[in-house]
Amino acid sequence: MKALAQASRAAARVLVAASTEQKNRALGAMARALRAAGPDIAAQNQLDLADARASGKNDAFLDRLLLDAPRLEAMAAAVESVAALPDPVGEVTERWTRPNGLRVRKERLPLGVVLMIYESRPNVTSDAAALCLKSGNAAILRGGSEAFRSCQAIARALQVGLAEAGLPAACIQLVPTTDRESMLELLKLDGLIDLCIPRGGEGLIRFVVEHARVPVVKHYQGVCHVFVERTADLELASRLIVNAKTSRPGVCNAAECLLVDAPIAAAFLPLAAKALVGKGVELRGDAATVALASVPVTPAKGDDYGREFLDLILAVKVVDGFEAALAHIAQFGSEHTEAIVTRDPALAQRFTREVTASAVMVNASTRFNDGGELGLGAEVGISTSRLHAFGPMGLKELTAQKYVVEGDGQTR
Amino acid sequence: MKALAQASRAAARVLVAASTEQKNRALGAMARALRAAGPDIAAQNQLDLADARASGKNDAFLDRLLLDAPRLEAMAAAVESVAALPDPVGEVTERWTRPNGLRVRKERLPLGVVLMIYESRPNVTSDAAALCLKSGNAAILRGGSEAFRSCQAIARALQVGLAEAGLPAACIQLVPTTDRESMLELLKLDGLIDLCIPRGGEGLIRFVVEHARVPVVKHYQGVCHVFVERTADLELASRLIVNAKTSRPGVCNAAECLLVDAPIAAAFLPLAAKALVGKGVELRGDAATVALASVPVTPAKGDDYGREFLDLILAVKVVDGFEAALAHIAQFGSEHTEAIVTRDPALAQRFTREVTASAVMVNASTRFNDGGELGLGAEVGISTSRLHAFGPMGLKELTAQKYVVEGDGQTR
Repeated sequence: MKALAQASRAAARVLVAASTEQKNRALGAMARALRAAGPDIAAQNQLDLADARASGKNDAFLDRLLLDAPRLEAMAAAVESVAALPDPVGEVTERWTRPNGLRVRKERLPLGVVLMIYESRPNVTSDAAALCLKSGNAAILRGGSEAFRSCQAIARALQVGLAEAGLPAACIQLVPTTDRESMLELLKLDGLIDLCIPRGGEGLIRFVVEHARVPVVKHYQGVCHVFVERTADLELASRLIVNAKTSRPGVCNAAECLLVDAPIAAAFLPLAAKALVGKGVELRGDAATVALASVPVTPAKGDDYGREFLDLILAVKVVDGFEAALAHIAQFGSEHTEAIVTRDPALAQRFTREVTASAVMVNASTRFNDGGELGLGAEVGISTSRLHAFGPMGLKELTAQKYVVEGDGQTR
Repeated sequence: MKALAQASRAAARVLVAASTEQKNRALGAMARALRAAGPDIAAQNQLDLADARASGKNDAFLDRLLLDAPRLEAMAAAVESVAALPDPVGEVTERWTRPNGLRVRKERLPLGVVLMIYESRPNVTSDAAALCLKSGNAAILRGGSEAFRSCQAIARALQVGLAEAGLPAACIQLVPTTDRESMLELLKLDGLIDLCIPRGGEGLIRFVVEHARVPVVKHYQGVCHVFVERTADLELASRLIVNAKTSRPGVCNAAECLLVDAPIAAAFLPLAAKALVGKGVELRGDAATVALASVPVTPAKGDDYGREFLDLILAVKVVDGFEAALAHIAQFGSEHTEAIVTRDPALAQRFTREVTASAVMVNASTRFNDGGELGLGAEVGISTSRLHAFGPMGLKELTAQKYVVEGDGQTR
């Protein structure tokens, strides 16, 4: 593993000086190679799927693993869309002049070597590789054992693209084994690996954080709240919670808990509960919710608050005002996405200031905390660590910033 | 230690909502309290100094530990100067509107709880506390055992300031013990501590990195190079290397190695060597340097390159052109500060782009890689990790950025 990481480090030295044009040429060639390799990738994917089925994996797992024709095309198109994004490397983010005439600027550079650890989604192989390449980083990709043949077939196609553009093969390396020992070895390579991004279930992520000596950016959970404040437009609030809960209940930016301000609970709960139940949502509420909702509500148990259901289940609570909502979110939130529905600008301002979450929404669905939806073009993951990146990580979040100082012989 | 960190976490919740005015009021009161406590701090410092002398600490150590009247005044003035800096919290760094009308912005917020680990300089107690408070972070300060009574006396004064401004005492906590076990316990408190900044010798920093489960931003060494390229103004280059080496040889941004482009070696080396030797510098050079310098040069051993002398010793090497200089820096540099002296703008541009270091200097002394000199107002340390912060860390580097999204009922 050390030799593999050293090869990545050497490739990173080449990539730091690669032009935007050369990187885009590689991305274009990678997309073409992915399309040409479609039958090979699909065949390898069928082998992975057969094994997964034989070992009794559930439908959700098989669906994450599947690469059918539309998904293969989406993979290639995603690589092309990364080529179309602006190159962050060399971007000057600030500049100023010092009284002694020194011209100072902050300029983006690649992080260096990025280790991506993921599980059953083979498309992460090309998505992450494209984002790393465009931002000038060498990528070490460590996919899950169940998707290993699919990942290998994808990585072979990516290599064709690198070769066409004259970039070293080690710019993108798939770890050739899927055992835990080699992953542990990689996680200790402080100095060779600049960032590790784990994506997958909470178990994998906790394992990585526990053992890593290299820096890790990650998120564990998305326990997202929607707080409907007393001045809210109730129709709008009802639409937002239905969207936040039901548009894709299995993802991290789906809402898991609805907080309703006490003075409007009697008016709002019957309206929202009816809409939610109409979409198949099970409500788990406190006593006030059970009393007011006009539909059957399961009494909430203690651990229903702060829980990531990832399912058509929503915890509901009536709270006594803005402060009580903030306190509930501080106690039970996961710093992922928090939303308020309100018509009071002062409270909206306080909410955005005082709630600590990677994205804070005012009168918008929690589902917008996503790199594509926020306009980042693509994302390599969402961070709920506040250090380095907080929220969706796009190309800019795969860079660092150095100081560049130009003088005329200044001394101290 | 866990209870201490939980108290910091609770204090951080108060600080995130504290106004600039309230934080500045606390800083003003802290500065006044430091001045009032001058005699108490000096008395405690004398006790620390007596013990350090008795245990045979060297002069450099005793000097770092000493708090005399001018240093006490400088500590109080530093707290006031932090009060005068702009508050980074709430600063909007970018804003844009999405096609669906969502208004997105990135806004700075405090990191949360910052753990500062340091050794014998007691003034770090008030410097770090002031920077953390202004950036809305709760500070946990863990000073070295030799400075413990001095740190306690300073922390008592800081508490007076917090109380006057009505802020919780736990905003600034000095760890009440200096044993390694309690430090180890703190380093494991992922989730309660958001960032650890160790400052001190390489041994301390390696210990922290080895054992931390909380994020660490640090630098190990400053192995800084000055490359005098063939088009350089030789007089200017000579002044720069003298300044970079001799203005304060014991600090991390002092130059440790001079690289001289071969075509100008015969003209430049006698000039620079004479000036350096005149300032008491011992030169350790390769064969070409020994042959050309016109003054006595110690033949360099292999480990003289890549070494942080922190003394009036300079490694010197004649390199065969720009690429060879880049290769030497990539091999031996520590990503702290690297400088080129040149009159060729294209090479200056390539140097600033391709050299990976927290600060890259063109025609300026390496000694300018410092928060104060670059205009950050003050610094809590210098990072050579590329993640989160690279270079001097001021108030902005003690913040994260969240996404704030304002809508009118948008759904996905």
